[in-house]
Amino acid sequence: MDPQQLTRELHVKNDSKIVMLVADGLGGLPQESGGKTELETARTPNLDALARRGVLGSTIPVFPGIAPGSGPGHLGLFGYDPVKYLIGRGALEATGIGFELTARDVAVRCNFCTVDAAGNITDRRAGRIASDQSAPLAIKLRQVKVDGVEVFVEPVQEHRFVVVFRGEGLGDKVADTDPQKTGVPPRAPKGADAASEKTAKAAAQFFHKATAMLSTEEKANSMTMRGFSARPALPSYEEVYGLRAAAIAVYPMYKGLASLAGMKVIGAAKSLDEQIDVLEKHWNDFDFFFLHFKYTDSTGEDGDFDAKVQRTEEFDAAIPRVEKLNPTVLIVTGDHSTPSAMRSHSWHPVPTLLASNVCRTDACESFGEAECLRGGLGQFKAKYLMTLALANAGRLGKYGA
Amino acid sequence: MDPQQLTRELHVKNDSKIVMLVADGLGGLPQESGGKTELETARTPNLDALARRGVLGSTIPVFPGIAPGSGPGHLGLFGYDPVKYLIGRGALEATGIGFELTARDVAVRCNFCTVDAAGNITDRRAGRIASDQSAPLAIKLRQVKVDGVEVFVEPVQEHRFVVVFRGEGLGDKVADTDPQKTGVPPRAPKGADAASEKTAKAAAQFFHKATAMLSTEEKANSMTMRGFSARPALPSYEEVYGLRAAAIAVYPMYKGLASLAGMKVIGAAKSLDEQIDVLEKHWNDFDFFFLHFKYTDSTGEDGDFDAKVQRTEEFDAAIPRVEKLNPTVLIVTGDHSTPSAMRSHSWHPVPTLLASNVCRTDACESFGEAECLRGGLGQFKAKYLMTLALANAGRLGKYGA
Repeated sequence: MDPQQLTRELHVKNDSKIVMLVADGLGGLPQESGGKTELETARTPNLDALARRGVLGSTIPVFPGIAPGSGPGHLGLFGYDPVKYLIGRGALEATGIGFELTARDVAVRCNFCTVDAAGNITDRRAGRIASDQSAPLAIKLRQVKVDGVEVFVEPVQEHRFVVVFRGEGLGDKVADTDPQKTGVPPRAPKGADAASEKTAKAAAQFFHKATAMLSTEEKANSMTMRGFSARPALPSYEEVYGLRAAAIAVYPMYKGLASLAGMKVIGAAKSLDEQIDVLEKHWNDFDFFFLHFKYTDSTGEDGDFDAKVQRTEEFDAAIPRVEKLNPTVLIVTGDHSTPSAMRSHSWHPVPTLLASNVCRTDACESFGEAECLRGGLGQFKAKYLMTLALANAGRLGKYGA
Repeated sequence: MDPQQLTRELHVKNDSKIVMLVADGLGGLPQESGGKTELETARTPNLDALARRGVLGSTIPVFPGIAPGSGPGHLGLFGYDPVKYLIGRGALEATGIGFELTARDVAVRCNFCTVDAAGNITDRRAGRIASDQSAPLAIKLRQVKVDGVEVFVEPVQEHRFVVVFRGEGLGDKVADTDPQKTGVPPRAPKGADAASEKTAKAAAQFFHKATAMLSTEEKANSMTMRGFSARPALPSYEEVYGLRAAAIAVYPMYKGLASLAGMKVIGAAKSLDEQIDVLEKHWNDFDFFFLHFKYTDSTGEDGDFDAKVQRTEEFDAAIPRVEKLNPTVLIVTGDHSTPSAMRSHSWHPVPTLLASNVCRTDACESFGEAECLRGGLGQFKAKYLMTLALANAGRLGKYGA
């Protein structure tokens, strides 16, 4: 079920404000079975007070057992069915470095690699060349010109870089040129249809000129291309929800994901405090605000339980300034769990809180995984969170007579 | 997921009895955050006793955040996916006034309107003409004859009336003739395919003759047509569940909705007591009984907390007579919530109770929104309620070997 099928028809406008605070990787695990999770360990008086007046639940990012990446994790929170809408690898990589894709673009994840004199790959990652060596090479490749197609080259990290082809009628059904093994040459780009063949031709020309330019390099003397993908065709927040939406994030990936959904990326905040400055400053300009907090995820990925607890407390301390703005609907959630015990994204349901005047409060006393199990929202797929947000904001008409 | 896809194959027959008591708009909200809802405030000793021996849960009428009208609300309870099956506006309007649609019908919601000498609309609702003025006009229009198609005209209220065209091969993809603005004439009916063009021709002829008949009226001298729709093609209770089903309702809308699902509307009860008289009288004639109680909704719509509490207590008082019949499965639920605090249908999950000898009782002590959160049925989409009913009645075979 795609909830936007109904919200597209049912949404109405009013002057309510919806704020969605996303603490990345919020959910966690205890250090020992039966203990408290990071969120439960953290002193979060503000979130706990909010939990008492709001309603709790647990969001399931995709479906039970699926640990999502940042792409599907956020698409779900934004109300896009993360199984229906997939962001291609190239598009996600470009988005992640802050490259703003247009509808005329096909983005490609590229690897520098090493080939021998016969052109056969000897190292698929060019010896994991250091970023400070690979970045100048990527920038050098900006000199490559391709007939009838504009080309952008962006360094990423180590052996990885991004190429974006921009032009009319470029398809993205182009097979990877990375043969996934050594001892053979990179494959020639091949399109599955006429439009994609046009992209494949541009890619082949780029490859030809780029490898000529790289031929004298010791490690990075060739390249492979993977994950050809166009900008995903997400209907915009305005279209499916009637919301003027803004995104306040520090990291490019989350700005990019929000902009794919038609949100306007605002401010240039470098910290949570600055993000809330931006929120305050633009309060009258938008109906919906997505605010992204990264560090509950990164500390989880580091496997640092205490640091995640501390970052959670930092997040909690920001709540009063948000509440002072008196949003009609205030949501606190995460895009997935990142238990420090696992050092990775996980499938565990994500603690979620929604506060509004009509939310039907439950008996929950604090914000945490165990307490959320008793919550009035139950366990539900993240893709329904936006529908609940709109309903609580009085922005959805009745379905059927 | 359409549950009837499986129940259609798996249902078996036995002599069990299933009773579904629907208190319309049952779910509610407290008067103050943290307080008790209408249902929790009401003294409901019988429902509470039933809750202790049954299993509780909360039904989500469509999906989280969606407030349904009576149509989708009841379709869900009857096990029809309310997103898959939509009852057209015309069909619902006809159903709501007790008109029994056949498979050969296309129903249309009509408005009397006022046009000027040039035929342009000056008032889309004919000055909201009073029902006692408009009803005789609608009845007068019964004289209009259309070639090859039978026509029914039924008054509704104020400027609204219903026209039903009955004939072979009438399509319902006919665009509204209401231009939704004044200063222009009503549009000509236009069909999107051959079958609908046939309906559009009949509608055009009706319009021509009707407006000639109305031309001397001061206010209601013309008409517009909206929501052309055929009887929705719902598979019957007999077909998908193997149940001989009966509906006991006071209001035409709910009789109509039940009859669309193939239930037989029985009795002519005017009160809850009389409804139970009908239930007792026909106990041996059917396998399934849907009994509809309206006043928990209408008091909610009125915003009258105390009256809703009182109506809930009235509903509770009827339970012992139902239990005395010893139904195999007894269900108590609502088609949606109607919190008196909101004076409207809402999206909040609906308290639901199922009692049978094999229901796996939970720890719940009373029937109310908060208690239902601890219930053994959890939160689930209303469309699965009938599957649970059949299972508890021993009327579903095993799926797969």
